[in-house]
Amino acid sequence: MNINSNYLNLEESYLFSTIARKVKEFQSANPEAKVIRLGIGDVTLPLPNAVISAMQEAVTEMGKAETFKGYGPEQGYDFLRNAVKDYYATKNVQLEADEIFISDGAKSDLGNILDIFEIEGTSLIPNPVYPTYLDTNTMLGRKINLLDGNESNNFLPMPADGDGGDLIYLCSPNNPTGATYNRDQLKAWVDYANKNGSIILFDSAYEFFVKDSNLPTSIFEIEGAKTCAIEFCSFSKTAGFTGTRCGYTVIPHDLVLNDTKLNKLWLRRQTTKFNGVPYIIQKGAAAVFSEQGQKEVEENVKYYLENAKIIREAFKELGFWFVGGDNSPYIWIKCPEGLDSWQFFDKLLNEANVVGTPGVGFGSNGQGYFRISAFGNRENVIEAMDRIKNLFK
Amino acid sequence: MNINSNYLNLEESYLFSTIARKVKEFQSANPEAKVIRLGIGDVTLPLPNAVISAMQEAVTEMGKAETFKGYGPEQGYDFLRNAVKDYYATKNVQLEADEIFISDGAKSDLGNILDIFEIEGTSLIPNPVYPTYLDTNTMLGRKINLLDGNESNNFLPMPADGDGGDLIYLCSPNNPTGATYNRDQLKAWVDYANKNGSIILFDSAYEFFVKDSNLPTSIFEIEGAKTCAIEFCSFSKTAGFTGTRCGYTVIPHDLVLNDTKLNKLWLRRQTTKFNGVPYIIQKGAAAVFSEQGQKEVEENVKYYLENAKIIREAFKELGFWFVGGDNSPYIWIKCPEGLDSWQFFDKLLNEANVVGTPGVGFGSNGQGYFRISAFGNRENVIEAMDRIKNLFK
Repeated sequence: MNINSNYLNLEESYLFSTIARKVKEFQSANPEAKVIRLGIGDVTLPLPNAVISAMQEAVTEMGKAETFKGYGPEQGYDFLRNAVKDYYATKNVQLEADEIFISDGAKSDLGNILDIFEIEGTSLIPNPVYPTYLDTNTMLGRKINLLDGNESNNFLPMPADGDGGDLIYLCSPNNPTGATYNRDQLKAWVDYANKNGSIILFDSAYEFFVKDSNLPTSIFEIEGAKTCAIEFCSFSKTAGFTGTRCGYTVIPHDLVLNDTKLNKLWLRRQTTKFNGVPYIIQKGAAAVFSEQGQKEVEENVKYYLENAKIIREAFKELGFWFVGGDNSPYIWIKCPEGLDSWQFFDKLLNEANVVGTPGVGFGSNGQGYFRISAFGNRENVIEAMDRIKNLFK
Repeated sequence: MNINSNYLNLEESYLFSTIARKVKEFQSANPEAKVIRLGIGDVTLPLPNAVISAMQEAVTEMGKAETFKGYGPEQGYDFLRNAVKDYYATKNVQLEADEIFISDGAKSDLGNILDIFEIEGTSLIPNPVYPTYLDTNTMLGRKINLLDGNESNNFLPMPADGDGGDLIYLCSPNNPTGATYNRDQLKAWVDYANKNGSIILFDSAYEFFVKDSNLPTSIFEIEGAKTCAIEFCSFSKTAGFTGTRCGYTVIPHDLVLNDTKLNKLWLRRQTTKFNGVPYIIQKGAAAVFSEQGQKEVEENVKYYLENAKIIREAFKELGFWFVGGDNSPYIWIKCPEGLDSWQFFDKLLNEANVVGTPGVGFGSNGQGYFRISAFGNRENVIEAMDRIKNLFK
């Protein structure tokens, strides 16, 4: 018997552990310094009151025999699937409730979706990108083609004939770059996928940050997507669910491969290897779609986007090249003075006491770039950007 | 591109849908009949007060900026890993906290664990058994050898030289039979695994029902298990978490394959393809180990075991052959009068208005057997057994 030897091909990521070590060393050498962290992709605002109330009620239900809930449907309760369905309808995307699978987050489903495809296939993965796509493919020994994101395409790579790709990973608004595809660009991807028989795995975890109504927030807003795309979304960034764990995956009935509906295959996968999201959490997630819930998450996202605007304006003032931050919580800057990602990290930490994320941690094309996150608190964001402006002006 | 064609080898299970259809038909033909369901493997008592209070507090924490929790460690919070560690210590099993991985239930981890092994291997799976073992292996195209459970071994198959098996699935107390391995029997399995370089996947989801102190409740009570076993446990049946979703998986540091610690491989799997169990749910699970929590879950399990005793005694009185029900919520009976599983189901439904689960639904060796569950309420259990006694005496 052997282990899955593909695991030996995984590159250990030292990105966040190296950041933590460097910050710790700096802080112990400079105990008086006030370090501001703009590196984390985690939210900081608490859960909306609508979500809290719904979960308090659900917990109470679980404590009484008359309202106690045992096993729920693995694919999610109808009350939540219908709420997600109605949310899509507001984007003019018509779905059936059973095209929506409630998940414990986009990360799990983005990895597990590979279960339903044969291993002998090629995945087209942007560089730089959220490392989970690359790692989960490497774990299976799938072939990987990287898609170049760079300054000339604003880190929004487009399809080119001959790129191949049985599975195509797209993330928009993007993590880590914050860049967002427009309708024409996504249409080009959908056409490419339909022409080549590829399937797009569309990560829309940051869709709620899109406030420009010309930009799509779902791949299914694009004509033809239902025959070539699966969408992964999450309450993590919309409603602060990073530690509360709920998301959803949309697989249209029209998505067919080898005469088999992928919706049916995924249902089989989930009913066999998953037991559903806790009832309490699903009740909280459903409250996100209530009138009060929508008002509250809108306010929270507005707060983060205001932070992003402050960050953008500071870099504009400094004349740095950047993308993102207008419909996204991330701003992706080009390191100044020819510094590489880690050199810039060190300079920022040592001379401005600000922590960000080296772009090279997201792939080789991230070298010389840097991710700043808008998920901090206002006061810290303002102070951090003042320090950075002082340092580079 | 192709689908994972192994999915086409899965047998559709019509077990529970057929049961539901038959009950519905009977009920509409006999609207006045009071049908009692002793078929479900789901709990019915509400969550313990200790768990409810802990979750209410945790929900409140999530609503305030000062106490809000974002991403947690994928492998679980230390407070819960340490509580599980201390629980094992009460069984004289010494573990490190980082040998324990908090999961969203045994079902997920029992399926996902296959990720870390090469596909070219043979799994030894009991027949009859919880269908997830078979299905998850079939989905990967792994070779499967079935282990005969039958009346002569009390549905507790033992190893025999030449059986092979890179991975060996054991479930004790067993679902569906309720049979429980003793120490000598488990020692024989551990010795067999260590000798053959096999790994035992030990499902202990029903361990809390073991009240006979001579019987082991963890594979790690057996000498030598740390070099050959992984244990999967769950709060589902112990504390009523079937709809609340939390469990744990134990991978000892001593478990090494190809010079690689499986603990480290699983950590890599989980950090890449899982994002942890909700903070609120982990707080609830930790409360199971509080003094009040232990008292409450003990009372609940005692209630179910008292139901099981009533069921056992009725079948003893009738002279039916059965196993289980003494350290388990399931009683596995041999159908009387030469009836097969579905014939007995129909007779019970039509003539006693009682619903159980046909044993053949758990594998071919279950043909002619029947599972009765003790997870109902007392009054119904008593009435159901009175009706069955009247029918067969």
